[in-house]
Amino acid sequence: MIPVIAVDFGGTHIRAAFFPSEIVKPIRQTKIRTEAEEGPYAVIDRIERAIKSVAPADCEGLRIGIAAPGPLDPFQGIILSTPNLPGWDHIPLTKEISNRFNCPVVMNNDANLAALGEWKHGAGRGVDDLIYLTISTGIGGGVITQGRLLLGAHGLAGELGHMRVVQDGPLCGCGQRGHIESIASGLSIAKIARARLQAGEASVMGEIIEDFNELNAEDIGKAAQKGDAFAISIIEDAGKAIGSHLASLVHAFNPARIILGGGVSQLGDLLFTPIWQTLTKEIIHPAYLQDLELKSAELGDHAGLIGATVFARQH
Amino acid sequence: MIPVIAVDFGGTHIRAAFFPSEIVKPIRQTKIRTEAEEGPYAVIDRIERAIKSVAPADCEGLRIGIAAPGPLDPFQGIILSTPNLPGWDHIPLTKEISNRFNCPVVMNNDANLAALGEWKHGAGRGVDDLIYLTISTGIGGGVITQGRLLLGAHGLAGELGHMRVVQDGPLCGCGQRGHIESIASGLSIAKIARARLQAGEASVMGEIIEDFNELNAEDIGKAAQKGDAFAISIIEDAGKAIGSHLASLVHAFNPARIILGGGVSQLGDLLFTPIWQTLTKEIIHPAYLQDLELKSAELGDHAGLIGATVFARQH
Repeated sequence: MIPVIAVDFGGTHIRAAFFPSEIVKPIRQTKIRTEAEEGPYAVIDRIERAIKSVAPADCEGLRIGIAAPGPLDPFQGIILSTPNLPGWDHIPLTKEISNRFNCPVVMNNDANLAALGEWKHGAGRGVDDLIYLTISTGIGGGVITQGRLLLGAHGLAGELGHMRVVQDGPLCGCGQRGHIESIASGLSIAKIARARLQAGEASVMGEIIEDFNELNAEDIGKAAQKGDAFAISIIEDAGKAIGSHLASLVHAFNPARIILGGGVSQLGDLLFTPIWQTLTKEIIHPAYLQDLELKSAELGDHAGLIGATVFARQH
Repeated sequence: MIPVIAVDFGGTHIRAAFFPSEIVKPIRQTKIRTEAEEGPYAVIDRIERAIKSVAPADCEGLRIGIAAPGPLDPFQGIILSTPNLPGWDHIPLTKEISNRFNCPVVMNNDANLAALGEWKHGAGRGVDDLIYLTISTGIGGGVITQGRLLLGAHGLAGELGHMRVVQDGPLCGCGQRGHIESIASGLSIAKIARARLQAGEASVMGEIIEDFNELNAEDIGKAAQKGDAFAISIIEDAGKAIGSHLASLVHAFNPARIILGGGVSQLGDLLFTPIWQTLTKEIIHPAYLQDLELKSAELGDHAGLIGATVFARQH
């Protein structure tokens, strides 16, 4: 039983929590704003403050685990660059934090750690091979193969949202074209819906929302849940695209479970039904489906923190 | 040092070789015709005969490793079904062979074992993370992650040729659409070239080949090597498609090396140059490229046999 302080931070918030033993619920936690515009070293000071506010009186044997936005090098503890954190370019975060607390610090990207967290303590319990996909603003991923987190040569593996599924497709947030993120992420769903509404398609959303430019995936989800055919078709299209991509990933990884997390995944059956229908239709052999399960993530906002705890205890 | 008899069989040939110690060159080998049309149990008899013809006088401690066409279940030693072997449906091959020789028998699919062979004794030596792609009639794959062959929940992982890269794309040999195999395999390259020639494009091939229906990837390769612009463009297009797919796979696996095998890969720079140019252009962050190498397979026709030997010694 190694006590761990887990940190999960992104462009808007820094969260820290103290996990005294191998449990899922932290005994003390905090959430503060990142204030990313102040630059990396101001953010690191705020991370330090968040850690201090949850730290136990006795720090004997303590480890710190950090879930951060990628791309990052977990082996060297360096954040390479990240779109939502201006000025972060090759920042040696684990060394900075380790110097301040004089204890071992490990770091990995938030989607990979969410996969690890779900595997050990959430929807992935009991299997050795799983694919985790988080569908929110963007699409991130993490893979467990034969009971280990897939890291790759430099810890950059698992970017399952940045795989090309449509030739010459829409522009992705990363600058490439046709990635699944450019078709089925929250931002992309909203963009597609805006374009179709502006082209004159009928929807109750046209009555509810004054400025189409403010339309987001949550609005579409709400309209779909109320039975709006337009909103349902938007979500169905996203589900089909995700299902098709998952069929490819199943051929590559042959998982026993697929776990979907992130805000968009909370649409439930509206999204899961077209995903599963497409996935099963596009599988090349029924053996891939023999005990494959598609599940919702269970840890919600805590997945990154819990994954960081698992990762810190492993290393 | 465990003595191993390795077997590699497909729709046309059965090869068997005896590897007395951990070396790459077998001391005795044979190659006979599969005669697949005679059905599974006649083929199994022929496999038995091939094994006997290379077996040592003293079989003490011997293991048998089999490279077979997939999909197959390596954990249970069952060939599930395979397009080039009529009548093979859930055939328990390892049990059949084990009963005949009274020794441990393991089996895995030929592309996965070629990846394993190249990793231990070929172009993959020295790295822990690699992607192996074999481009011949079809496209197969195998992945080594953190020093282990990626198997997945039922040993079906690594089907990197059956991943969708074009929406509503050409029909693939597996029955699905838009897989990379349907665009860049030997059969697909020939199909695309035939369609373009029949549509009237100019090429020296139009003069050499009387019946376009007999055109194959080798003919196109020869014409390209002689400088035929049409043939070069066909191979360039295939290279670009493979490079784009590899960029996606690099985001998923973050390998330190990519190894290309199979007949089509022998086109060398004609294929490798467009692959590398597209791959590097479509990578989302330069960190993925920091020490990534693209290499030709080294073991040629022996990759499956050598991989089967490695696999048998591991299990």
